[in-house]
Amino acid sequence: MIIVLRPDHQEEDLSRIVQRLEDMGLRAHISKGEHRTIIGAIGDERLIAELPMQSFPGVESVLPILKPYKLVSREFKPENTVIRVNGSEIGGQQIQIIAGPCAVESREVLDEIADAIQPAGVKFLRGGAFKPRTSPYAFQGWGEKGLKFLASVRDRHGMMVVTELMDPRDTVLVCKYADIVQIGTRNMQNFRLLTEVGNIDKPVILKRGLCATIKEFLMSAEYIMAQGNEKVILCERGLRTFETETRNTLDISAVPLLKQLTHLPVIVDPSHAVGRVDLVPAMAKAAIAAGADGLLVEVHVRPEEALSDGPQSLRPKDFSKMVEDCRRVAEAVDRFI
Amino acid sequence: MIIVLRPDHQEEDLSRIVQRLEDMGLRAHISKGEHRTIIGAIGDERLIAELPMQSFPGVESVLPILKPYKLVSREFKPENTVIRVNGSEIGGQQIQIIAGPCAVESREVLDEIADAIQPAGVKFLRGGAFKPRTSPYAFQGWGEKGLKFLASVRDRHGMMVVTELMDPRDTVLVCKYADIVQIGTRNMQNFRLLTEVGNIDKPVILKRGLCATIKEFLMSAEYIMAQGNEKVILCERGLRTFETETRNTLDISAVPLLKQLTHLPVIVDPSHAVGRVDLVPAMAKAAIAAGADGLLVEVHVRPEEALSDGPQSLRPKDFSKMVEDCRRVAEAVDRFI
Amino acid sequence: MIIVLRPDHQEEDLSRIVQRLEDMGLRAHISKGEHRTIIGAIGDERLIAELPMQSFPGVESVLPILKPYKLVSREFKPENTVIRVNGSEIGGQQIQIIAGPCAVESREVLDEIADAIQPAGVKFLRGGAFKPRTSPYAFQGWGEKGLKFLASVRDRHGMMVVTELMDPRDTVLVCKYADIVQIGTRNMQNFRLLTEVGNIDKPVILKRGLCATIKEFLMSAEYIMAQGNEKVILCERGLRTFETETRNTLDISAVPLLKQLTHLPVIVDPSHAVGRVDLVPAMAKAAIAAGADGLLVEVHVRPEEALSDGPQSLRPKDFSKMVEDCRRVAEAVDRFI
Amino acid sequence: MIIVLRPDHQEEDLSRIVQRLEDMGLRAHISKGEHRTIIGAIGDERLIAELPMQSFPGVESVLPILKPYKLVSREFKPENTVIRVNGSEIGGQQIQIIAGPCAVESREVLDEIADAIQPAGVKFLRGGAFKPRTSPYAFQGWGEKGLKFLASVRDRHGMMVVTELMDPRDTVLVCKYADIVQIGTRNMQNFRLLTEVGNIDKPVILKRGLCATIKEFLMSAEYIMAQGNEKVILCERGLRTFETETRNTLDISAVPLLKQLTHLPVIVDPSHAVGRVDLVPAMAKAAIAAGADGLLVEVHVRPEEALSDGPQSLRPKDFSKMVEDCRRVAEAVDRFI
Repeated sequence: MIIVLRPDHQEEDLSRIVQRLEDMGLRAHISKGEHRTIIGAIGDERLIAELPMQSFPGVESVLPILKPYKLVSREFKPENTVIRVNGSEIGGQQIQIIAGPCAVESREVLDEIADAIQPAGVKFLRGGAFKPRTSPYAFQGWGEKGLKFLASVRDRHGMMVVTELMDPRDTVLVCKYADIVQIGTRNMQNFRLLTEVGNIDKPVILKRGLCATIKEFLMSAEYIMAQGNEKVILCERGLRTFETETRNTLDISAVPLLKQLTHLPVIVDPSHAVGRVDLVPAMAKAAIAAGADGLLVEVHVRPEEALSDGPQSLRPKDFSKMVEDCRRVAEAVDRFI
Repeated sequence: MIIVLRPDHQEEDLSRIVQRLEDMGLRAHISKGEHRTIIGAIGDERLIAELPMQSFPGVESVLPILKPYKLVSREFKPENTVIRVNGSEIGGQQIQIIAGPCAVESREVLDEIADAIQPAGVKFLRGGAFKPRTSPYAFQGWGEKGLKFLASVRDRHGMMVVTELMDPRDTVLVCKYADIVQIGTRNMQNFRLLTEVGNIDKPVILKRGLCATIKEFLMSAEYIMAQGNEKVILCERGLRTFETETRNTLDISAVPLLKQLTHLPVIVDPSHAVGRVDLVPAMAKAAIAAGADGLLVEVHVRPEEALSDGPQSLRPKDFSKMVEDCRRVAEAVDRFI
Repeated sequence: MIIVLRPDHQEEDLSRIVQRLEDMGLRAHISKGEHRTIIGAIGDERLIAELPMQSFPGVESVLPILKPYKLVSREFKPENTVIRVNGSEIGGQQIQIIAGPCAVESREVLDEIADAIQPAGVKFLRGGAFKPRTSPYAFQGWGEKGLKFLASVRDRHGMMVVTELMDPRDTVLVCKYADIVQIGTRNMQNFRLLTEVGNIDKPVILKRGLCATIKEFLMSAEYIMAQGNEKVILCERGLRTFETETRNTLDISAVPLLKQLTHLPVIVDPSHAVGRVDLVPAMAKAAIAAGADGLLVEVHVRPEEALSDGPQSLRPKDFSKMVEDCRRVAEAVDRFI
Repeated sequence: MIIVLRPDHQEEDLSRIVQRLEDMGLRAHISKGEHRTIIGAIGDERLIAELPMQSFPGVESVLPILKPYKLVSREFKPENTVIRVNGSEIGGQQIQIIAGPCAVESREVLDEIADAIQPAGVKFLRGGAFKPRTSPYAFQGWGEKGLKFLASVRDRHGMMVVTELMDPRDTVLVCKYADIVQIGTRNMQNFRLLTEVGNIDKPVILKRGLCATIKEFLMSAEYIMAQGNEKVILCERGLRTFETETRNTLDISAVPLLKQLTHLPVIVDPSHAVGRVDLVPAMAKAAIAAGADGLLVEVHVRPEEALSDGPQSLRPKDFSKMVEDCRRVAEAVDRFI
């Protein structure tokens, strides 16, 4: 940590800061320049990361040197984390596709969708039983009934289930049915929920918040890992920007950046990011070309009847075509689907 | 709702949409123009707001006409909602100032702070017992112990307590000590938590999310009201933008805009918005000039020792000066503090 | 155009608006619903697009139906525009790579760079002689001397020159040396400059502004085409968002979106977008996978000596590797480099 | 400037950087910590601000210590700059209101508007003769004819004229008629235009770009001052954010922040910022409460006939009311109108 003093600071301001750093077990390294005096705090600056050095009299600015996260960082664990679920791997050479409807509607529709996507090689079925909806009047999901539909379709098809957990009180219930638990965009900084899934023994897909920085995203993953759950899968799903033609702006550069900063697998959800079915296939290919370890895609047999997010759901035929196209791109970057 | 068809739509696309609208109890009004055919859906479009009209074949775009919220809207209730708490009013002629530390640290410090702010006329003491922190390693608040400190200081000073609820499982606990319950920025779309506070009999301060639109903000308030709790106070606290000199960008235009769209009281938190103590007083004055019904301000007796958010906490002397200055601005807009 | 009236509008408000529409040669189609009265303006709404219908008494909102651009739209010209420059094509099956230093520094360095990139198949050499710099104290480019270096290296290598025009007064000068003229991000809405390049007989690369919507981007291209120059190449180069780990956020979804809305070629500049050399290759591959017609990439033989934008300049060895990798991705999407 | 080395840097990386700093006349101060080695560059870091230190092998990050601007900074000139125009002051105790139509339409309408606003105490008449319009098909302003209308109305009313310059080729022409020259939002980084107005002897209103940081805004002012023109007036006019209810998000915190960083006057344009006439008065009051030195406001006698930006133009009656209200707020902050 570098502490820059104001040109008009007092000598006692300097000594008070040095004292505080030493009290915390750090060494202070003072450098008086022509225009500014700066203090370098030597030692593990995470110790004082949360202290308000900025509030000390005489301080102009504080510049952190170390990253605020640890367990998730590649510096801490250089090799890729590969998460194994029932014999399948996420984060390895294979790119996994997780597909299904936004919300679980009925066992029959879910079954139809599973029938339609499985031939493309999909092993993970997604579907929401608890749905975070902007409007209190919108369909909120079938709850446990929906989880049961998912489990029944999973068993019939030999797939794995990915579903969202919204409330810490539902943790046991959701874990009973899910193979992978999803934490949604709007809950990326629901710290109690993160702590909760830090204590379960299931992989967690953590979706990036609409306006979360990469640093905050990794800090939320750190919350989960700090509790002991090392099976965290990061999911980029678009940022909120001024552009309104797409629902959000998919930050594909987050993929190579995250792969560099962390050892955790990184997947991409093109469906929620763009919110328009016509752009999903191009973005899926781009994600794979950029190094994503998987895709989370919405598919529905009849989007115009979907109870949620129809406009971004691919029809099975278009989904199959997309998977074929993605397969070719995967090979071009030495991966496979 | 206006449904715009693509220039190349089929006749059957049109009839399928009309059928669907009529099935939902709406009338379809078709208008064939030179360049586009459009369908107007007549009736309460909220009935179909959640249906994926965009997914119907032949549809180019869908334009909503009605607002998606109802109970919170001024159209529904034209007169201002004035919330009464222990004889004080929020949303009336008086502008209320809610002040205190970011996190409750100890009974002694809290007491010192209450001593320092009460002479300025502050009746509401804020302080967090449960703190949402970006880092799992940062101080997370004292929990119930902190709530007890708040209650004890409240009783000693005859003030009212405003404190944050982060987890639905703590609702009963927090309500036992709080006079007003706060829902934080990162939980603005924690829909389960909103539902929970929709069922309590205490006023709720709902803080706007960092990247929440005005519409989403009002929909979250609608969530609370839809459960029956009509005592919702909206709090603008800054948007996340590209600017890094301030922590966030305080959207003061949200104040007159919200006052126009809703009957609910609107307050402003300049401390979290700018994140720098030197800009807080100017923004407090601006908020009042723009029509805010109150302020939420961080004050600490020794910001450099604060366990959280020191850089944005005013010292008592600066706080008192700010309140005096705000009082003059309040009078200039025919209000009082 | 749909004009929505306020619930409390007067009859005379309605008739005044109808009158105005008819005066402009449009037909007004009135639809009185349960909650709102709406007026559909039938005819070419572009005629009134610029009129302040929103200012009429009784109007609640105005919703455009038609897109505000024409010549650039795929509706106007369905087939792709392929731009031919000295026997090479931009916008056809081949993906073109435009590479070179940010700023032209000396004939020798430029020569070295051209030597290094040509073996990878690069036919277009980029380099700035006029540099838009944030600081007045930074290197502003060599001006005509730089243009002469570019021309000399072009002639020696048989390449084509892409260089930026910043000032309408330099148009003739720049056109004397350039094969393709570039309009920079900060000048995307320098309408006088757009008009100027609308009158030249050279292809123009128009870079998207940092916070330009897709609609504004296309309107700027329309400015150029409206003057008669049909050879416009659109270049996505990143949006300004809250994320600070990358310089900008590359909006790759703009590629398939633009290809759908317009017939013009679309290229991507990953170097300026991310501003970090380590992320450039992944983003180049993503751009191609998403359908880009070309890349604009910064290359320097010794980035640490570059007079501008070193941190985002690839070294020749990394550039050659990137082109090889891109070639494989191009084949996976049925294109070639 | 602080240069942070990667944990895996080589000794020769370090010595190469030290060498380069010394070559530039700076001293290098090396500090080897537990986790990172950092190099402090001592001396005027502006000398190397533009050099790509980030591109040196072994460098992890580069943190600037000094601000990149000089002439505009309060550190350089502590007292406020007060600009005098024909006996009136901008930047002094009086708050100046600059009002008028967006575009000059005719001498008659301009005259009517001047008649309407002068009684409120307005001394500066704004109006565009050259209009930057998003669409090439929209009204682009009357050019010199418009300037003549402005001059004629100015002379008749004894007011001063504020008008926009868009093209360096029009500088002499515009200066012939204008008392204050305005550089528009979209030209904030049109560096050639900035250089041009740096050489004139008229005050310049520089509007902040839609996505310009405070630092970039000040660097653009530095461009003008670096040429010798010290009469720069900064104008905040809203940022582009995700919010669509308002046209832009007015960053009122920019006012106290700029007043702290620079000695130049700061005014606010609420009309363009919010783009809705109903919110303009509240934002005008907020701007004054926050410390603005003036307002730039759109007024039109018949907004529904305005050739540009009608929805944000106040009618004279509402304008007069707003000025009265602003006068009271001004007094509450010890200023006057």
